[in-house]
Amino acid sequence: MNRRMILYMPLQILKLEALILLLPMAVAFGYHEKCAWSFLACSVGSLIVAFLGSWILHPGYKTIYAKEGFVIVALSWVLMSAVGALPFVISGEIPSYVDALFETVSGFTTTGASILRDVEAMSRGLLFWRSFTHWLGGMGILTFFLAIGNMADGPIHIMRAEMPGPIVGKFVPRAKDTAKILYGMYIALTVAEILLLLAGGMPLFEASTHAMGTAGTGGFGVLNTSIASYSPYLQWVITVFMLLFGVNFNIYFLLMIRKIRSVLASSELWAYLGIFAGATMILCIDLKGIYHSFSELLRTSAFQVSSIMTTTGFSTADFDQWPGMSKAVLLFLMMTGACAGSTGGGLKVSRLLILAKAVYREFKKMLHPRSVTVLRLEGKALDENVVSNTLIYFVIYCVLTGVIFLVICLDRFNLETAISATVACFNNIGPAFNAAGPAKNYADFSVLSKLTLSAAMLLGRLEIFPILLAVFPVTWIRK
Amino acid sequence: MNRRMILYMPLQILKLEALILLLPMAVAFGYHEKCAWSFLACSVGSLIVAFLGSWILHPGYKTIYAKEGFVIVALSWVLMSAVGALPFVISGEIPSYVDALFETVSGFTTTGASILRDVEAMSRGLLFWRSFTHWLGGMGILTFFLAIGNMADGPIHIMRAEMPGPIVGKFVPRAKDTAKILYGMYIALTVAEILLLLAGGMPLFEASTHAMGTAGTGGFGVLNTSIASYSPYLQWVITVFMLLFGVNFNIYFLLMIRKIRSVLASSELWAYLGIFAGATMILCIDLKGIYHSFSELLRTSAFQVSSIMTTTGFSTADFDQWPGMSKAVLLFLMMTGACAGSTGGGLKVSRLLILAKAVYREFKKMLHPRSVTVLRLEGKALDENVVSNTLIYFVIYCVLTGVIFLVICLDRFNLETAISATVACFNNIGPAFNAAGPAKNYADFSVLSKLTLSAAMLLGRLEIFPILLAVFPVTWIRK
Repeated sequence: MNRRMILYMPLQILKLEALILLLPMAVAFGYHEKCAWSFLACSVGSLIVAFLGSWILHPGYKTIYAKEGFVIVALSWVLMSAVGALPFVISGEIPSYVDALFETVSGFTTTGASILRDVEAMSRGLLFWRSFTHWLGGMGILTFFLAIGNMADGPIHIMRAEMPGPIVGKFVPRAKDTAKILYGMYIALTVAEILLLLAGGMPLFEASTHAMGTAGTGGFGVLNTSIASYSPYLQWVITVFMLLFGVNFNIYFLLMIRKIRSVLASSELWAYLGIFAGATMILCIDLKGIYHSFSELLRTSAFQVSSIMTTTGFSTADFDQWPGMSKAVLLFLMMTGACAGSTGGGLKVSRLLILAKAVYREFKKMLHPRSVTVLRLEGKALDENVVSNTLIYFVIYCVLTGVIFLVICLDRFNLETAISATVACFNNIGPAFNAAGPAKNYADFSVLSKLTLSAAMLLGRLEIFPILLAVFPVTWIRK
Repeated sequence: MNRRMILYMPLQILKLEALILLLPMAVAFGYHEKCAWSFLACSVGSLIVAFLGSWILHPGYKTIYAKEGFVIVALSWVLMSAVGALPFVISGEIPSYVDALFETVSGFTTTGASILRDVEAMSRGLLFWRSFTHWLGGMGILTFFLAIGNMADGPIHIMRAEMPGPIVGKFVPRAKDTAKILYGMYIALTVAEILLLLAGGMPLFEASTHAMGTAGTGGFGVLNTSIASYSPYLQWVITVFMLLFGVNFNIYFLLMIRKIRSVLASSELWAYLGIFAGATMILCIDLKGIYHSFSELLRTSAFQVSSIMTTTGFSTADFDQWPGMSKAVLLFLMMTGACAGSTGGGLKVSRLLILAKAVYREFKKMLHPRSVTVLRLEGKALDENVVSNTLIYFVIYCVLTGVIFLVICLDRFNLETAISATVACFNNIGPAFNAAGPAKNYADFSVLSKLTLSAAMLLGRLEIFPILLAVFPVTWIRK
């Protein structure tokens, strides 16, 4: 265990964050808002701490393996959230540090759950920062560091620990180049969305914050009504882009290198689109008594399905008022989540495919006990370690959902609030049902619940293992 | 695939059921109730059909393997439920066949969910039959058949398919003798409970029906208030016996052959008692504002925990009115269930132990990728097939919970009703929350929901695989 490196790397991420904080500072100065100074203070303070710390902790050797990768990612995310919360507190716009931390973790993990009762009262600099955390957290801040930094050994372990999905592949031999390509595609798609939103008449500030919220599949908006007050055109643009950011970025890379046939053969892509279409259809049938024009019915259903399934969490309707069937479908979509290798959360479609294949194989095995079958995904044989890891992942996922739910139950909300808030935070969606519904917020939850849900968001975004390994005592024992 | 045997065996079970129906008939005649004739009609009709069918389908060879065992068990249970529902309909006391089927499936699967709005209006013969289905379903009707019948080949496959738990062992080399020992212990415990209830002043009819409901961990009572109107002594007797019937019968066998050390070393037993004690403590803390005397608080908490965890479903309080934390704990206990090899339902404690061990091993593997560990349970090494089967079981269990929940949502109850009814039926508890709470019943559910929940109860009691394999097309394809 390279302990120095485990502490050294998060400090490098802190340096990066200090630089990034200058961006919302610039926005705040542009709007003549005094919150600019809190960004500056936070940035300078972070730089000093990071440089001092790096000087003290400079590691003798930089080699890291998988387990160091996990712990580095976990600690980096906790540190950058803890620091990213400071501007909210220093500016006084969110006086409670726990609230600010909840909001920042919700931002970086692309959850979009908010404790703000009135978003529109916030200064633009802080709103920009909130949305920017989505953008950065979506593709991953360590992946960003890899793209621009210079790491000799083990960057692939860090990328694996930060990228969602059961299997993380490299596009090109070097992890650094893969990270660059990923961010290149990410920036291109984000810019495309900003342009299309501007074309629909959305002001630049709103277009860029919403585009960042879409790109990271985050869901923080800048209006109290989320996306409901925008034109049908703008709602459709966001629907389509949420879907696009929920696709495995591997697909875009295949498109870039013109491997159209591989794209069309992707079972994850088809399953993802199939779930989207099926869920939209069920909602259209269930809600046809509520929305009388077909275009509104289709638009509202498609928007909410896209938003929940990609784990974004924007809304154009108060879906908490919908009938049970639609809410049950949304609850399932929260857990399904988007594709692996996307910016979305949840279990991921490819993981569900692996589970389905493993179940089918077990049935066949019960009928023909001596049969041996190798599972295949996207044309490749699956390593049995990946299969068993996926099964275990599912078990831990369910157990953690239960544990978090139990803690939230201490708050004496009803069970529907507790279970949906748990699912919505753990899977990085944001809005849930009842007291945590899209027309409400998380302000009324207790401090314990806010901290638990913050942990849930981190567990969800980093796919459980990094966080649990970091707090698992055995990890820290010297052999 | 021995297809003739698959159809032949359920007909033998039907013959057995025809004989068993004479028991409630005798009770009904004893109370001079005219429902006695409906038992007689049903019994005679079943005998004729069973003998005719057996004569036509007489199989050339009787050898069966695991897959035939699964399908035989599934078909037998469906057939005996379909026939067992007839006396309710013929007597006119439950006019709708779907309702009668729900009630009978609920009985045999030891669920205890009822569609009766007024239990006390039923004739005693039918009430006795209802409770007797619990008793028979608890230990298993095919196991009963094995104990008294004469099967040369493959009975262990049938016993495995009917007995709950990840691993089914034989006490003695012959399955027939094992079945005899099981039923011997079962009868002894049931008689002991009847005597203790009689000693507390409970009339014989109520003592025997409640003892059968406890033995099968079923939960059908004969009073509208379930167990609430009985004395503290009687409530404690039932609490203890529910717990006793939730223990792996292997433990009693070990006690019988005086292997006390093995009993004390049983991790499943300790985990089971630990969960009981822990959950009772949480409830005592959560409910101390509601029950002011400590003895009432402890008794009510312990009763409900014992009842729900062993998946019995008796109640001494309307726990639907309890605060969220207590209800959440009960919801978890519903899924935890009792020990493997008991008459209880749910996931089973030993399965949870295997899952926990598998998860712990995966963590260690992430830290030391080359480590190889063999999992152990109760001092024995676990076959990797059992581990992966348990993981797959858990996945299917979760997926089925989701599917059943979605169908129930069509009924437009609230989500809490839908999810708790699903969990309570699938895990064979009975009472759930809200519209399906202990003070309510399942009468208002739609026909589709009643049939779905009936299927859920069968899936739960037979631990999924037999039912799914019976409807899995590949099972029926000739190689």
